[in-house]
Amino acid sequence: MPVALPQTLRWRSYPDQPDQPGLQLLDQRRLPQHVEYVDINTLEQAWQAIHTLIVRGAPAIGIAAAYALAQSMRDVPQVEFVQTLASNGEYLKSARPTAVNLAWAVDQLINLATTRQADLIEAAQQMHRDDEKICQDIGRKGASLIKSGANILTHCNAGSLAVSRYGTATAPMYHQHAAGVPFHVYVDETRPLYQGARLTAWELNQSGIDVTLICDNMAATVMAQGKVDLVIVGTDRVTANGDVVNKIGTLNLAVLCNHFDVPFYVACPSSTYDAATADGQSVVIEERDAAEIRGDHAADVKVYNPAFDVTPNALVTGIITEHGIASNATELREFMQRKLAPIF
Amino acid sequence: MPVALPQTLRWRSYPDQPDQPGLQLLDQRRLPQHVEYVDINTLEQAWQAIHTLIVRGAPAIGIAAAYALAQSMRDVPQVEFVQTLASNGEYLKSARPTAVNLAWAVDQLINLATTRQADLIEAAQQMHRDDEKICQDIGRKGASLIKSGANILTHCNAGSLAVSRYGTATAPMYHQHAAGVPFHVYVDETRPLYQGARLTAWELNQSGIDVTLICDNMAATVMAQGKVDLVIVGTDRVTANGDVVNKIGTLNLAVLCNHFDVPFYVACPSSTYDAATADGQSVVIEERDAAEIRGDHAADVKVYNPAFDVTPNALVTGIITEHGIASNATELREFMQRKLAPIF
Repeated sequence: MPVALPQTLRWRSYPDQPDQPGLQLLDQRRLPQHVEYVDINTLEQAWQAIHTLIVRGAPAIGIAAAYALAQSMRDVPQVEFVQTLASNGEYLKSARPTAVNLAWAVDQLINLATTRQADLIEAAQQMHRDDEKICQDIGRKGASLIKSGANILTHCNAGSLAVSRYGTATAPMYHQHAAGVPFHVYVDETRPLYQGARLTAWELNQSGIDVTLICDNMAATVMAQGKVDLVIVGTDRVTANGDVVNKIGTLNLAVLCNHFDVPFYVACPSSTYDAATADGQSVVIEERDAAEIRGDHAADVKVYNPAFDVTPNALVTGIITEHGIASNATELREFMQRKLAPIF
Repeated sequence: MPVALPQTLRWRSYPDQPDQPGLQLLDQRRLPQHVEYVDINTLEQAWQAIHTLIVRGAPAIGIAAAYALAQSMRDVPQVEFVQTLASNGEYLKSARPTAVNLAWAVDQLINLATTRQADLIEAAQQMHRDDEKICQDIGRKGASLIKSGANILTHCNAGSLAVSRYGTATAPMYHQHAAGVPFHVYVDETRPLYQGARLTAWELNQSGIDVTLICDNMAATVMAQGKVDLVIVGTDRVTANGDVVNKIGTLNLAVLCNHFDVPFYVACPSSTYDAATADGQSVVIEERDAAEIRGDHAADVKVYNPAFDVTPNALVTGIITEHGIASNATELREFMQRKLAPIF
């Protein structure tokens, strides 16, 4: 279980305005050197926070959007409520196109068809609690994959910082660590934003898990040396056919796993499953600013900076959900249909 | 042909000491922002320059070592000459263990069995001229691989900066560019020292070649999109069985090429062929400082930082040498035996 880690997002009352709760986001861009929270007071601030990665991680984005949307509906007249809720929601969705949780969370609130802000806040809080429970269940379902002495490799941050408390890819790790099972984790630094180096290595290490940081291009070498027993990554969207959209570099790992005969697992809460999209090729992959790659060292040349890649289902050994580990798209659909029951 | 590029190393007379020539090395750590030369006046300075990557690139290290060794023999008494040459040579070899050119160049000078410094300087200069000729020949032999409109991907810097003028992996590119053949190059940024981003992207761009910089973990995506027709990389050592030791991340690319059915070529001058070592597993892979990966962003955790990896010959489509493109270890040996004729 993660210890001593700051919460990714907080919903709290301001001491001087007890009637006006507000959203606070941990600024993940400044970790691990700085643990700082940003107050989100307006919808525009929420959009910017999602767009600029103050908050990142598919589930965290969804929950932050739900809170921000609920917050934005304060003092909206009844007659405008439904329409404003819809337009505010569409606006928030445009902050990042790839992670399905953002659209999913917004739609959950819109579909409530309520005209009371209190209902929206309650729904966001319920979503937040559900997320923690779902991550805990992913941890339980995936725990058996991590045997004593196992070497795991992970990419980017699908950890406590990406969601609520246990993370997704990290949930089986936290579960086994709490159970006293010894294991070791290689963490890809995850260029260009170093979320592996800054976030995952930090949070696992803080929790007492044995971690070694490597550059993304070293994964082949540690696999060739027989030092990786399994890979577990998170995801921003799993499509109906079981294709996995995740942080750039995930496809790279999946191909390596295929070559070196290493099992490749993806942790996916039901909120990240997109039954409405046939396959990964249909997903819009956002491209980000060249400056993220250039930094202050690179030559002034053209840059290609896709934020995500698509791993075909054929390269995926299993998808760890809160209902169990799905080994194919049919089984995944069966598990994920259980989420269709309204959560509110 | 590379234009407007600074020379990686210079051997020149000092105006105030016309009788005392000296080695100057372009400080490759500071490129592309700063074009600065470092004077090498002592053997210790040469060792440090190689060890700290002021000069890098297998052929360039070899030539720099030859010049530095020759320079160190000034004023050595005849009676101590042979022994001092051997001990100075062994000392220089210890600066970096993996690139075979360093040991090869030192041994070339020792094997001259001369007691005249002038012979050593002449040998180093001949080695320098030979290297340029060899690179030009690699360019001619590899040129046919680059068709009009081709998309190439390369890693690290096996360019003009790594050797004399044409580079190794870049030689076929410079050849075709001079011939007016249009093509495009994806350059891996090459963590942890960004030699692709800083050096290769810069030198190709300076020469008017169409370049796109990507992070190492994006290679899978551009291949999956069908945007890569071939990969060409350099090497620090090719062993007798045709295994390729090269900058960390090369094995990663070779596995991806195998998966996506993209030809994988390695440019290897004869000075980089190591007939005396059976296979890549027998080569010492240097591990470098954790700080190279941690930078100022990463969490304070354990780091694994191997500088090179080993690509098994089975993943190599062809090895481009100055004598032709070898498609297997036997053919490579046949080509490389031509170097056994003494070059002096």
